[in-house]
Amino acid sequence: MDTILAAIKKDAVNIFTEETLTEKLRSGRKLIIKLGADPNRPDLHLGHTVVLRKLKLFQELGHSVVFVIGDFTGMIGDPSGKSKARPALTIEETRKSGQSYFEQVTKILDPEKTRIEYNSTWLSRMNFEDVIKLASKYTLARMLERDDFKNRYQNEAPISLHELLYPLVQGYDSVALNADIEIGGTDQTFNLLVGRNLQSHYNQEPQVVMTFPLLVGLDGKEKMSKSLDNYIGISEPANIMFEKCMKVPDDLMLDYFVLTTDITKDEAQQILGGDIRSAHFEYARIITTMYHDADSARKAKERYMQLAKGTTPDDIKTLTFDDDSADIITLLKFAGFAQSSSEARRQVTGNGVKINGEVVKDVYMQVDISDGVVLQFGKNRIIKIVNKE
Amino acid sequence: MDTILAAIKKDAVNIFTEETLTEKLRSGRKLIIKLGADPNRPDLHLGHTVVLRKLKLFQELGHSVVFVIGDFTGMIGDPSGKSKARPALTIEETRKSGQSYFEQVTKILDPEKTRIEYNSTWLSRMNFEDVIKLASKYTLARMLERDDFKNRYQNEAPISLHELLYPLVQGYDSVALNADIEIGGTDQTFNLLVGRNLQSHYNQEPQVVMTFPLLVGLDGKEKMSKSLDNYIGISEPANIMFEKCMKVPDDLMLDYFVLTTDITKDEAQQILGGDIRSAHFEYARIITTMYHDADSARKAKERYMQLAKGTTPDDIKTLTFDDDSADIITLLKFAGFAQSSSEARRQVTGNGVKINGEVVKDVYMQVDISDGVVLQFGKNRIIKIVNKE
Repeated sequence: MDTILAAIKKDAVNIFTEETLTEKLRSGRKLIIKLGADPNRPDLHLGHTVVLRKLKLFQELGHSVVFVIGDFTGMIGDPSGKSKARPALTIEETRKSGQSYFEQVTKILDPEKTRIEYNSTWLSRMNFEDVIKLASKYTLARMLERDDFKNRYQNEAPISLHELLYPLVQGYDSVALNADIEIGGTDQTFNLLVGRNLQSHYNQEPQVVMTFPLLVGLDGKEKMSKSLDNYIGISEPANIMFEKCMKVPDDLMLDYFVLTTDITKDEAQQILGGDIRSAHFEYARIITTMYHDADSARKAKERYMQLAKGTTPDDIKTLTFDDDSADIITLLKFAGFAQSSSEARRQVTGNGVKINGEVVKDVYMQVDISDGVVLQFGKNRIIKIVNKE
Repeated sequence: MDTILAAIKKDAVNIFTEETLTEKLRSGRKLIIKLGADPNRPDLHLGHTVVLRKLKLFQELGHSVVFVIGDFTGMIGDPSGKSKARPALTIEETRKSGQSYFEQVTKILDPEKTRIEYNSTWLSRMNFEDVIKLASKYTLARMLERDDFKNRYQNEAPISLHELLYPLVQGYDSVALNADIEIGGTDQTFNLLVGRNLQSHYNQEPQVVMTFPLLVGLDGKEKMSKSLDNYIGISEPANIMFEKCMKVPDDLMLDYFVLTTDITKDEAQQILGGDIRSAHFEYARIITTMYHDADSARKAKERYMQLAKGTTPDDIKTLTFDDDSADIITLLKFAGFAQSSSEARRQVTGNGVKINGEVVKDVYMQVDISDGVVLQFGKNRIIKIVNKE
């Protein structure tokens, strides 16, 4: 039991409270472990795996993991109409997100012990009276303790009243699930504690809250996130995954080893005691093997070394395009180099894109592919595109 | 038209805005004039008549008056459970309140042009999503401009989040009714303006808000209210009404004349230029005639003068009680001297109650009424209670 407890507590920044965590684990009950999930289509990366790997441990102990897709507020969007960046999602979009979460998290988690729930299931059934009762459980002063609200209030930046309800929405999810434990990054501490607090008000045993460190991204500055393009996605192709692992800043290597692999701190320090490039190779090998396999990791390393020497890899991939011409943005997305048109445009304006070795200057460039072209982004992403005829 | 406008604006403290008030009145449309009403059983007093008399004027101009009974929040009560003074009302209680409002206000207003609405009709249909959209229309900073919230926030007294929703509830009533004008006391200014503001957000023409002075009660200090027992109720018996009018503090007589009767300020000043006791008699006569009739006013005056001379009035009323004994609290309520047991207890502990001329000292006193007793409260309320056998 002590070994189990130590494994579960490992790397946690805060636990509210350790005593109740121990009690719950000792109770022999099958516990419900909650994790809140964004209703937008996810692209899970190594940052997410810090908690996912912890959830896996709970599953191995027989407990059940529930991902709560926050579709209720997602479908409302931004009702104040101020933020164009938050359009209302359709129910189909949120269901696709849920499906995609399931597919991605089960690369790590046991699908049998993983459940996806949509919080609209219970929240859309609540009426005005229920909302008033929910809101009565929390004071304004406590809500304004949340850092972002506090800062905005002090700086006289407007806070719409509905925003004060959102942490309650999220917290109520714990009540609806009767969650035993909720896990999240340290930036979620306030929200997770709201759930804990509300459960007491609804006469439930309050959930244990465990927070874990945020993985810093490849830029070495910000928390890893897709929007900052400083991430290593767990569904990325082996070659790209390997290559990105080689770019982890030296001073973050220890964190990456400890938080994202099974390597212990002692082992990691030993690896890092030697040549730093070898440490990177070892890290890239471990990660690529975890999310692909040993063979893919080996090939990705070979390719990486060829490219590093400046030679064109032998295994250049060929894709067949339906038409005999296309604009450069379409091709970058088709090749999988960009996830969106805006990302593709940034790749071109950053002078990172080449057609047959020539840098592309024009985001509107129309490319003739009747004889086939070699499309390249950065040093390492190269693809041949041919017409189907 | 100018005469009408002047009559409507008379005594108003603030009008948001005079221009739109004029426009609406000139439009020729039948306007909807809203007044918010407490869901607790009302006992309307002269303080209420300040706005009721203004509503009457609107009715005379052909407009429609709607009393909105705030039953939605009344039925929720105090969800935080902190205030025992605010128990949740049943739907029957709120319907009785509505009926009682109608009966009392139609002493002044035209029943044909007076409508009672219950805000639960529209509010109980709202779901969580509707509430979030409603709450998104208002910022925290604006809500904290309300004096009581501001003071509590600054004094670090807790404000529950649901309390911030209540002004929105009240404001949304204006949206549901598509109100043209809302009238209230100056203490309601903030709430009335919320309605005005929300209507714009829901693409309605914002209501005109008119606020009127609060009538100071018989204590000469606080706003007239039943709970402070400084009121003259419009449904009180003629004798009591007359007697209470005689107690209006001298320095408030001008306000009482101007705000609660049809006497103009000039006429009132002329009356008050003479003997102040005569002015009180005139005021008492006018009010008692308004809410009863000239004959009752005359009789009430005779009785008042007899009592003032120390003689027992001839017309002492006799009530028959079912049993041959009862406790003093029951008798005070039976006689109609007290509305509640707590009021009766205060009457006894204040040494104001006599049985057969003897002051009652004991709130638990058991009174033998087999031979009949004379029950007296204060100088002027005297009743004979006899046993039915």
